[in-house]
Amino acid sequence: MRNIPLSGARLWDDLHDIARIGGTAKGGCNRQALTDLDAEGRAWLAERASKLGCTLSVDAFGNMALLRPGRDATRKPIGFGSHLDTQPTGGKFDGVLGVLAGLEILRALHEAGAETEAPLMLVNWTNEEGSRFSPPMMGSGGALGIFTPDEVLEKTDTEGLRYGDELRRIGWQGDGTLPNMAGYIELHIEQGPILERAGKSIGIVTHALAQAWYEVTVEGEEAHGGSQMAGRRDALMAAAPLMAAVEEIALAAKAPTGELGRGTVGRVTVYPDSRNIAPSRIWFSVDTRHGDAGQLAWMGTELRARAAEIAARRGVRITVSDFWQSPPTPFDAALVGHVRTAAEARGLAWQEMPTGIGHDAVYVARRVPAAMIFVPCHGGISHNEAESITPEWAEAGLLVLADAVIAAANSKDHP
Amino acid sequence: MRNIPLSGARLWDDLHDIARIGGTAKGGCNRQALTDLDAEGRAWLAERASKLGCTLSVDAFGNMALLRPGRDATRKPIGFGSHLDTQPTGGKFDGVLGVLAGLEILRALHEAGAETEAPLMLVNWTNEEGSRFSPPMMGSGGALGIFTPDEVLEKTDTEGLRYGDELRRIGWQGDGTLPNMAGYIELHIEQGPILERAGKSIGIVTHALAQAWYEVTVEGEEAHGGSQMAGRRDALMAAAPLMAAVEEIALAAKAPTGELGRGTVGRVTVYPDSRNIAPSRIWFSVDTRHGDAGQLAWMGTELRARAAEIAARRGVRITVSDFWQSPPTPFDAALVGHVRTAAEARGLAWQEMPTGIGHDAVYVARRVPAAMIFVPCHGGISHNEAESITPEWAEAGLLVLADAVIAAANSKDHP
Repeated sequence: MRNIPLSGARLWDDLHDIARIGGTAKGGCNRQALTDLDAEGRAWLAERASKLGCTLSVDAFGNMALLRPGRDATRKPIGFGSHLDTQPTGGKFDGVLGVLAGLEILRALHEAGAETEAPLMLVNWTNEEGSRFSPPMMGSGGALGIFTPDEVLEKTDTEGLRYGDELRRIGWQGDGTLPNMAGYIELHIEQGPILERAGKSIGIVTHALAQAWYEVTVEGEEAHGGSQMAGRRDALMAAAPLMAAVEEIALAAKAPTGELGRGTVGRVTVYPDSRNIAPSRIWFSVDTRHGDAGQLAWMGTELRARAAEIAARRGVRITVSDFWQSPPTPFDAALVGHVRTAAEARGLAWQEMPTGIGHDAVYVARRVPAAMIFVPCHGGISHNEAESITPEWAEAGLLVLADAVIAAANSKDHP
Repeated sequence: MRNIPLSGARLWDDLHDIARIGGTAKGGCNRQALTDLDAEGRAWLAERASKLGCTLSVDAFGNMALLRPGRDATRKPIGFGSHLDTQPTGGKFDGVLGVLAGLEILRALHEAGAETEAPLMLVNWTNEEGSRFSPPMMGSGGALGIFTPDEVLEKTDTEGLRYGDELRRIGWQGDGTLPNMAGYIELHIEQGPILERAGKSIGIVTHALAQAWYEVTVEGEEAHGGSQMAGRRDALMAAAPLMAAVEEIALAAKAPTGELGRGTVGRVTVYPDSRNIAPSRIWFSVDTRHGDAGQLAWMGTELRARAAEIAARRGVRITVSDFWQSPPTPFDAALVGHVRTAAEARGLAWQEMPTGIGHDAVYVARRVPAAMIFVPCHGGISHNEAESITPEWAEAGLLVLADAVIAAANSKDHP
């Protein structure tokens, strides 16, 4: 089915057309979940898909699916898509690319009058970004049973407005579940610099990193800034080398594949937070990730060992507590195979890589065979109005997604 | 004049009597500047001193002086005292000890019918603590011309109430200046652990450390917690070793006397402050102090050199800006000599030391010959309801202060 009229130019026009809904002065997009602009974006998509003979269904979490029948009505659909919601100062491509590439596939098939064996299903997941309602990926998490319905619908934003109420208010609360999928493939921008630096236009995502998040509290003793150094038990002077250790540990956690860990200290609080008082208490967050569960566990063990060593040496108390964990998530070998075959057949430069970042596809992959395709974005910049990609990268992603989805739908391996 | 009836027991009773004004459930004191309780404390002192034949004068900043005539009315008085205001969760001794020891000296002289050559003057400085109205030492700073009158009187607290208005409200705004002093000696608790650890009951303060405060901003680039480590420009991973360097630099700044520096990072802010985002910007405060101005300058140079090295190595931008400076302040050799002679004569264990902490005496010393006497406090704990000293330490301070003040008043060296 290489002859369907897939158009990178049409996709590019669509990307800029929908970007006007919530478009910002700096060229980005502010179309946060469950706002009036979110509703406008959804209507934009639904209207175009309905003209292509697709049937809309909406589940209790607001996830919207556009079903295109296949030749074999007994088969479950092959899903694809991503999300149309953005960060408050988001870009035009994060999530949107995956949905609009899916729309272009439906359009090309429609124009060609082509039919796949299994049905196809384009999905726009609700609130992937998690900026207004946290955590992220609540729509896919709710639909796949990662969260209970209440964990999603009762969640409030900073103004105390409920997810469920806001979903109803914008007119997008459905009353059921989406059709079960036989498989799911998501196209997304990389949100990292690897592909651009390597000169590759396609990333074949083989797995999602396991994550372990910690909270560290260092308790020492306040000392006046004028007091002598000897005998101080300065919590910050103990915390600083432990923060630095988070990076050292990530770089030391090397899997047999050569894959390294990732370590981030994103939040720090200081008590009592006065210029001339050596702090008595420091709290900081630690986010560790690795594709190898054993290496991830080692990172936690090593973090605790470093903390114990510093605590003993400096006479402070350091507590490292578990905050959140996410298991490693492998993508489906057969679907990843379709992606690899497509990239090869299209003559595109590709490489395999993990995703260190959560995506709807990662939640989907816990229940349904799934795969992901990355395309580069300039400088790895994302969650930023300056987010940008080239039309060539967008088209490369479109072609590989189309080939892989159609191959899966036409294969007997995904009943 | 060793035979005047100085009483450590009477001083101890006074300390506990005035501590009831603002006394806290935990045994501390909350008598913040320019509150009704401050007025009660002032009245407590004025009433007792007036019975001892002293004349009260109050200046425009609310500083109160109790003048006891000397034999030679042409001589300027020898001043002594400290402050009666406390931190919100302060102790019973910080500042109060110096004022009440002064009161006991006036009482003992009165009972003995003894006269000094120069007049004596007990001073209670307004708002030494700086907890309600910041900065600290506003009363002495105003009286000695370190601050302009407006810089003191127009200052507002967190509720927007003006220093000048609050001073008038509690009835303690005077209309002039305090009598000029020939010298000033202040007794204070050490607020550090040195004397207690060394088993000394008297600290002879030879100088106040010079201070240089900086603000450091580290600017890198945000990166998602799931992105690979290579290529990150994580502002916190650059800031952590620079924070640690503040301590290293303090310990490396060794004066010919063996005196080391002090370095404190008391405040830190992180942007964007999200668990899974490597920060793009870190701001932190640096407080450096040293008794040797050259060493202090070296500390600043070294801080900037370390910052430049880290910035170059990690591809981040680091700005180190001057925030505030205070010059080194030597105390007066003759007055320090009176203190040393007194400690020796009383057979008390003493040692010389600098003060790293600001005191009214430090501002006074910029205009008038001054000296300070420290007594230990348990564990160095201060600005805390648990602040405590022994009756023996209080008495040691009283005796040395009395002897030094009387020696200065009777000496021809302080006209």
